[in-house]
Amino acid sequence: MSKNPKVTVVEAYIKALCEHDLVAIDTLFDDQASVEDPVGSEPIQGKEAILGFYKTAFSSGISARADGAVRLAANHAVFPFIVELNPGNGEMRLEVIDQFSFNEDNKIIAMKAFWGQENISTP
Amino acid sequence: MSKNPKVTVVEAYIKALCEHDLVAIDTLFDDQASVEDPVGSEPIQGKEAILGFYKTAFSSGISARADGAVRLAANHAVFPFIVELNPGNGEMRLEVIDQFSFNEDNKIIAMKAFWGQENISTP
Repeated sequence: MSKNPKVTVVEAYIKALCEHDLVAIDTLFDDQASVEDPVGSEPIQGKEAILGFYKTAFSSGISARADGAVRLAANHAVFPFIVELNPGNGEMRLEVIDQFSFNEDNKIIAMKAFWGQENISTP
Repeated sequence: MSKNPKVTVVEAYIKALCEHDLVAIDTLFDDQASVEDPVGSEPIQGKEAILGFYKTAFSSGISARADGAVRLAANHAVFPFIVELNPGNGEMRLEVIDQFSFNEDNKIIAMKAFWGQENISTP
């Protein structure tokens, strides 16, 4: 069985976070996508704002890795992962669950990141 | 630091699934709550329907365990867990992420369960 295309997107997203690959991020999101990170904050809208958001994240030396299986339901992929910011230099570790909602072309149209103060640690 | 009350609810929920404790389920949900399990199916509405849903689940010999940290954002708790149905007798294993949304009394007002065919295995 070939891999579900939504799982492929999740894997490409985590790889892009690790490699600070803005071109890959550009490919994964729809032009009209929204990003709410964390959930409860003001969502950002549109490709330009989203690329700016990730550019800032990349400048903080972000890294990421999967923390469990991708769950698939309707047009959503929901997955637990670990984000590390500023590794080796005042490192901060976040436990996150992202919800990606997809359009019919399997581009991300909405990303919601669930994490809060309780999910931050400084090892 | 005392435990976040939403995390306490998640832990009580998983315990109630394991112990087939309908009284505990009754305590955790608001009377007007909705349950969408899996996401994409018709949500069920109200305490009576919800208790019926869990009664059916309990009759299938359900068990559950946490599969990672509870993520907290705004009024939501989102958490990965494993459900086992019919253990020891044609067992089915599901990898699920639940999203609980809470009211101000920390009762669950909406439960969404993210899982699909790709998250089912039969060990």
